[in-house]
Amino acid sequence: MPRLLILSRDAEDYRKILASADLPDLIIENSPSKDCEIIFGAPSMIPGVLNDLPNLRWVQSMWAGVEPLLIPSLRKDYVLTNARGVFGGLMSEYVIGYLLAHERKVFSRRQAQLSKTWDKTLTGTLHGKTIGLLGVGSIGEEVASAAKFFGMNVRGFTRSSETSPDVDRYYHHGQLSEFATGLDYLVSILPDTKETHKIVNTEVLKTLPSHAIFINVGRGTSLDEAALVDALNQNRIAGAVLDVFEQEPLPPNHPFWDAKNLIMTFHTSAPSFPEDIAKIFIENYRLYLAGKALKYQVDFEKGY
Amino acid sequence: MPRLLILSRDAEDYRKILASADLPDLIIENSPSKDCEIIFGAPSMIPGVLNDLPNLRWVQSMWAGVEPLLIPSLRKDYVLTNARGVFGGLMSEYVIGYLLAHERKVFSRRQAQLSKTWDKTLTGTLHGKTIGLLGVGSIGEEVASAAKFFGMNVRGFTRSSETSPDVDRYYHHGQLSEFATGLDYLVSILPDTKETHKIVNTEVLKTLPSHAIFINVGRGTSLDEAALVDALNQNRIAGAVLDVFEQEPLPPNHPFWDAKNLIMTFHTSAPSFPEDIAKIFIENYRLYLAGKALKYQVDFEKGY
Repeated sequence: MPRLLILSRDAEDYRKILASADLPDLIIENSPSKDCEIIFGAPSMIPGVLNDLPNLRWVQSMWAGVEPLLIPSLRKDYVLTNARGVFGGLMSEYVIGYLLAHERKVFSRRQAQLSKTWDKTLTGTLHGKTIGLLGVGSIGEEVASAAKFFGMNVRGFTRSSETSPDVDRYYHHGQLSEFATGLDYLVSILPDTKETHKIVNTEVLKTLPSHAIFINVGRGTSLDEAALVDALNQNRIAGAVLDVFEQEPLPPNHPFWDAKNLIMTFHTSAPSFPEDIAKIFIENYRLYLAGKALKYQVDFEKGY
Repeated sequence: MPRLLILSRDAEDYRKILASADLPDLIIENSPSKDCEIIFGAPSMIPGVLNDLPNLRWVQSMWAGVEPLLIPSLRKDYVLTNARGVFGGLMSEYVIGYLLAHERKVFSRRQAQLSKTWDKTLTGTLHGKTIGLLGVGSIGEEVASAAKFFGMNVRGFTRSSETSPDVDRYYHHGQLSEFATGLDYLVSILPDTKETHKIVNTEVLKTLPSHAIFINVGRGTSLDEAALVDALNQNRIAGAVLDVFEQEPLPPNHPFWDAKNLIMTFHTSAPSFPEDIAKIFIENYRLYLAGKALKYQVDFEKGY
């Protein structure tokens, strides 16, 4: 009878969903115990209990990003699986939503309304624009698909994979400058790894056209934040939309709060809805019981 | 040699595009003359010259809506064609853009940023929501397609046609209340006709759930404006996004300016870009020269 520990601020929701799923043989523990072999949790809450679970065999992360579990001093003698397949649609909504807010002048027209002005300023369109995706994994593929639906040209920058039929052209290591040249929108969906550290730097931002918009829905570490502040305040790019930051919550004195044409959304682009995340656990639990390979395994070396 | 009169605030742009298209036999006139047989223009500018063109045979409207030409006292002894196929993508961007602005709390999160607040309020999603389209012609079909792309359930209300594969269920005359029941979003794309006059009235608004959003990208006449003001100010629906109005520009004392949860965009949802509209004229001009039936003919009786 496998024993499971749930670690989440929504633990009660998860417990109810799993109970109603009537999973065979599963015992849900209330606190860490030496017999626990499975954790289903938010990565930030897991490091503190890792040493209390000598029989741990499998951790199912409730998030896509698992950085808290990659810290060198932590044990890695278990199978780590993350949440995939549920964030792509939410991320696509976010990216398309904010690109449309930009093209359709949603904020300036709202201001016009508040000042009772009939504002006929011409709007732009996504159709025919060029979007560059930094990182095209399972989430990036869905963003590419949405971009293609709206008639955009789609470029992808990846380490090596070229899996999306919606990417018109792929770029790899050494081609970052070529990739960024002429983009209308640059979108980072990169995980936090050594290779992605501050990959969006002064040089990349200088390569972008002055009308370009940068969106970060990956991880804050992939951006050189000071470089972005300069690029925005000097009007070298037209704007940025950031959902993730090096330090979260953003410190009160951070220059982002006063940067020009910057929109921030506080790590809300792709919330983990318990109904969606529980489905992933349930699917993997059935594989676990059957002794089969689990889905969405994370490579501790790569970090994703 | 057919003589053409162009009537538009962008007449110079259109003249250049047509000149570079090198159309056979076409003479572009600078002012109305009795030999003119074609008008390519904005409908609002056409009634004033109709009586000066005894040889008029064809009018190509630059807009989708042709209400100014339907006035009973005006002559209707010519072929009227309108602009189609170019607004669907723009309208889809508008509808999806404002639905995402609502679900993603774009305005309230912007306010949070301005007050330097880390706002983790949970966002919603389009996925699984139900949208009802009042009118599913060539524009409505593209909105239906975009709604389906984002995983919505799609209802369509039409006079009789059932042409879109993206509409899950069609409703017709007598089924308006059933159509509106349980909708998350109600979107009107209706033209201005007798049948559509104030079709969105108190009863329809009362049928909608209190969390519903109403969007009007069709014509202002299809809405009972006073009924909407009441519904909004009494929180009977959660909000509205209006691009069109009974009177445009909206009078300064109109109650819409102070209505709750109302967003207005001043008839900008689907601008007529000359490059797109000129293509329609060019295609039809070649048919005209060849003596073939023109595309996108308007039925003066139906009004579209």
